[in-house]
Amino acid sequence: MVGTARKLVTTTPVPSDIEIAQSVSIQPICDIADSAGILSEELELYGNTKAKVSLSVLERLSNAPDGKLCIVAGMNPTSLGEGKSTSTVGVSQALGAHLEKNVFTCIRQPSQGPTFGIKGGAAGGGWSQVLPMEDFNLHLTGDIHAISAATNLLAAAIETRMYHENTQTNEALFRRLCPPDPKDGSRKFCRGMFPRLEKLGINKNNPADLTEEEILRFVRLDIDPDSVQWNRVVDVNDRFLRCIDVGKARTEKGMVRETKFDISVASEIMAILALTTSLADLRSRLGRIVIGESKSADELITADDLGIGGALTVLMKDALKPNLLQTLEGTPTFVHAGPFANIASGNSSVVADQVALKLVGPDGFVVTEAGFGSEIGLEKFVHLKCRLGGLRPSVIVLVATVRALKMHGGGPPVIAGTALPDVYTSEHVELVSKGFENLRRHIEHANLYKVPVVVCCNRFRTDSGKELDTIVKMSKEAGAYDAVVSNHWEEGGKGAVAFGEAVIAATSEAKNEFQFLYEDAMPLREKIEVIATKVYGASGVEFSENATRRLEMYQARGFGKMPICIAKTQYSFSADANLKGAPTGFTLPVREVRLSAGAGFVLAICGTIQTMPGLPTRPAYYNIDVDLKTGRVIGLM
Amino acid sequence: MVGTARKLVTTTPVPSDIEIAQSVSIQPICDIADSAGILSEELELYGNTKAKVSLSVLERLSNAPDGKLCIVAGMNPTSLGEGKSTSTVGVSQALGAHLEKNVFTCIRQPSQGPTFGIKGGAAGGGWSQVLPMEDFNLHLTGDIHAISAATNLLAAAIETRMYHENTQTNEALFRRLCPPDPKDGSRKFCRGMFPRLEKLGINKNNPADLTEEEILRFVRLDIDPDSVQWNRVVDVNDRFLRCIDVGKARTEKGMVRETKFDISVASEIMAILALTTSLADLRSRLGRIVIGESKSADELITADDLGIGGALTVLMKDALKPNLLQTLEGTPTFVHAGPFANIASGNSSVVADQVALKLVGPDGFVVTEAGFGSEIGLEKFVHLKCRLGGLRPSVIVLVATVRALKMHGGGPPVIAGTALPDVYTSEHVELVSKGFENLRRHIEHANLYKVPVVVCCNRFRTDSGKELDTIVKMSKEAGAYDAVVSNHWEEGGKGAVAFGEAVIAATSEAKNEFQFLYEDAMPLREKIEVIATKVYGASGVEFSENATRRLEMYQARGFGKMPICIAKTQYSFSADANLKGAPTGFTLPVREVRLSAGAGFVLAICGTIQTMPGLPTRPAYYNIDVDLKTGRVIGLM
Repeated sequence: MVGTARKLVTTTPVPSDIEIAQSVSIQPICDIADSAGILSEELELYGNTKAKVSLSVLERLSNAPDGKLCIVAGMNPTSLGEGKSTSTVGVSQALGAHLEKNVFTCIRQPSQGPTFGIKGGAAGGGWSQVLPMEDFNLHLTGDIHAISAATNLLAAAIETRMYHENTQTNEALFRRLCPPDPKDGSRKFCRGMFPRLEKLGINKNNPADLTEEEILRFVRLDIDPDSVQWNRVVDVNDRFLRCIDVGKARTEKGMVRETKFDISVASEIMAILALTTSLADLRSRLGRIVIGESKSADELITADDLGIGGALTVLMKDALKPNLLQTLEGTPTFVHAGPFANIASGNSSVVADQVALKLVGPDGFVVTEAGFGSEIGLEKFVHLKCRLGGLRPSVIVLVATVRALKMHGGGPPVIAGTALPDVYTSEHVELVSKGFENLRRHIEHANLYKVPVVVCCNRFRTDSGKELDTIVKMSKEAGAYDAVVSNHWEEGGKGAVAFGEAVIAATSEAKNEFQFLYEDAMPLREKIEVIATKVYGASGVEFSENATRRLEMYQARGFGKMPICIAKTQYSFSADANLKGAPTGFTLPVREVRLSAGAGFVLAICGTIQTMPGLPTRPAYYNIDVDLKTGRVIGLM
Repeated sequence: MVGTARKLVTTTPVPSDIEIAQSVSIQPICDIADSAGILSEELELYGNTKAKVSLSVLERLSNAPDGKLCIVAGMNPTSLGEGKSTSTVGVSQALGAHLEKNVFTCIRQPSQGPTFGIKGGAAGGGWSQVLPMEDFNLHLTGDIHAISAATNLLAAAIETRMYHENTQTNEALFRRLCPPDPKDGSRKFCRGMFPRLEKLGINKNNPADLTEEEILRFVRLDIDPDSVQWNRVVDVNDRFLRCIDVGKARTEKGMVRETKFDISVASEIMAILALTTSLADLRSRLGRIVIGESKSADELITADDLGIGGALTVLMKDALKPNLLQTLEGTPTFVHAGPFANIASGNSSVVADQVALKLVGPDGFVVTEAGFGSEIGLEKFVHLKCRLGGLRPSVIVLVATVRALKMHGGGPPVIAGTALPDVYTSEHVELVSKGFENLRRHIEHANLYKVPVVVCCNRFRTDSGKELDTIVKMSKEAGAYDAVVSNHWEEGGKGAVAFGEAVIAATSEAKNEFQFLYEDAMPLREKIEVIATKVYGASGVEFSENATRRLEMYQARGFGKMPICIAKTQYSFSADANLKGAPTGFTLPVREVRLSAGAGFVLAICGTIQTMPGLPTRPAYYNIDVDLKTGRVIGLM
């Protein structure tokens, strides 16, 4: 892929992101694909600058050795973000366009919620971006829309099934589910009915052969409305959907139920997309989704019980293919699945990494981003993504900024949409070294996995040399294999050459004895305790009564081998956003536990964490418009 | 485009729709485009079998003469549908692959609601279909998803704006909307704020220059929550969303509001997509959307007042381009916008017809479908689409079936999902001639527009020769220019050659003095009365108190020139689905009236009509799955 790499002519002062993105002449995506070794029959164009790539690459290259996997994680960020995506793109541009390496970038698709809410879009930034940034921030190829469609179809199916069961006799239900043929009265099962029959141990092909008892079990899922844990979704920051009553129309006969919408990317189907490994695996996971319990509480009801696993797969089959885009310097990029590491698995897809690792070859690099601070993004990368996808990291990068260190060192709050206090744009070495405690903890955490750790100081124009030197020096002392200052925002790949060289060295020279922090066999409760104490630095875990009960139930029902996905604030090692630095002595409050049987993990919700963001008083959409002369988007940042 | 046309080898008994669709080797869409005269720079591929076509075709061919516009409408259908899409595709295949004519088919994109609900998908049927039928019935290129995203973003904006206004002082609102620069305290307006400033007559560029009174008017939309007429949408049959309470979470501070979700295709943004003519027009319409009234009732609040018109346009800019697909016989097809003629404008887009008319040239044909019976589909085609898009029909086709005529003649109910009563599959000429009253009324209605009318009897295998002859004979006597039997379901284009020849003759030989039934200047109330009496055969109209009040208000506020879009049942000329045949002496009840200022019409809701369908006990999704060996979709019908 070095063939299409292109040196940038960067300019300072750095123009706005969208100005830069629109100033570069974008290469046809088929050329990018060609240089990356993707065959034309493996490529599905979406316009000239986006494409989907078939998973058949994995079969074609099944015997080829994998490239090196570089995970870009971070420290606990300010609310402005510390440029992790920008650093991921920057080092990719350095490796591919300046250091003659095959490289692939794997990043997550952003949610439209923040794009129109607070962020105004982000595909990296400055001279390190993914193109076309407009599509990246908008519909892309529709994967998130597919997730919303599938999630909401399942929600409608649950609600309507409860309604039909409440308003019909067993006979009527059976007659409608398996209507007799008008000619000879014969009945048939639909394809979608066999998984439930199998689960019930009914090994019959002819509905007429069912006993009364079997008919009852077949037609009545008997879902307990209070147990339904499947929420509808929209990919919009719509806070008024956080708690709603549905079913208030006369036609629903008083079956009012309290429920909620989450933002689409928090859906279990997003987690499934991020963690699945093939179409067959996708089908199986979607069918296994547990939506609630039966009223007698002796059965977990799944999507396949509703006969809808196949339809969900049909809705998701195109979304399964990673989306190919390019960086400003013409290196290939997969954008696929997974934002919101605070409330979801928060990493781009397993399949994107797998395909990219095959394509770059043994000397090439796949640079993949893990969301937010390492305690959530990296921990989930390792325990969910590496475990379920069989991935082995070659190097872990921790992105740090002078700004975030100052905040952890006691600087005033950094609030998106308001002016940055002066302390963040003038030299304050003591705040940096005090705040280093946060980064130190992240370095120590990353080292637990026994993979070399490189710290990247993502340089801002107002950072002083002394401040940056402090981070580099302290990082090395704290156990990082290397630490470098990188200037990719201002200079593109050229500014990240030292960063790229550090990554290369770490993967070729340093020791790598990759390990997990817990094994499958450990009970669910202990897994949570391991994460809380070893990763977060908590002194213990406090489980709510409900959480305890559910953990015991999941353990008893055979889900004990699943890994844990923790939902908590991204602003602290703890579940309290205000505990900056490297807090100790706190207790992690596990408020709620949910089974994500399709995704393959148990979700533990810690502290108060919102699964539906809101819009600020002046949302980003105020700036966004189309230039009617050129047809181009304006106002994405 | 005759170049790519391909003769089918049809087989009987006719296989299932999806079997036929998957048995034909689909042509690369770029070849279809090329033969249709679309330049490669006007084409955006979505995979190899779908593409979007740029509206720049209209500029390039602005001086070229238009082709002939053939509108395919119908009689009042049974709940199974009478094969109008199938007939539209069939005659297109006849014209393009058998009669050496340039042809373009324009049809509507189906909603996923019915695909997973009752219908199981439909892209025509038998040997007259649009390919790829799987994509057609699923996400296609994401247009409906874009509509959902835009509709729901606007809903969130309305709700959150009311919340912020309720919880903040004028000063706080102003400070957050126009935050002072940290350096010099200067403030700026966002791009999205100028439309409101202009509407308020505030001609100032600097927020600091606003008087206290101007600030108040600028920051407070003061939306009356009870007046909000903007609903959220999902493209799912989710009946429990027909009436909901939102805002029940503690974070929303008790601001609970009753509202509802509609199915996405009923959104005003779908109507806008169907009726807009350019990107600039789209921007303007989206900004003009009226979402409700101010509490003082002296202001209609628009999307531009919320500063969101630009963002909505950004979400919709790709959806604006028609989607190119192909028929089984390789003729080009646009699939764009507009299902649900009962509750929406119900026709495919103006721009698809316009682009197609340029591409086929003066001797070519654009065959475009109008939803449901002519009293809604055709009436809206003429008064909304022709009027707003400057289109002139060359011929009107009315599709009739023996089955529907028998039902109108007194046959037993036809219920989807249950067995068809015997009377529909055996000869009953007297029922056909009795039921002809319905078709006669449709012929008389179509003749009002002074465009030649061709009746197409869409032949089913169980129809008798006598039954079909009866329809042909009576149609001609009733004033149709011609009437033919067509067998395209079983034979593809070959079976529709006589149908195609009738269409050609009607456009070349018959008189055409196209006219509207009402002029812009006629008051809104009278327009509704014209439609009710002249088109539906009602003896009069009964307006609810609320409807009367609103009509007066819209008339007074300058919306009186708008055309009317009526929402009512598709199963009768009246608003009562049970009044079959050609009812007279009934009163049309106008229950509710809404302003669709963006779409450019006034919506009159008559009788009880549901804008959110439900799922049956055995939804179509039970049959839908992916074949894991081939990756192909199965179970779409």
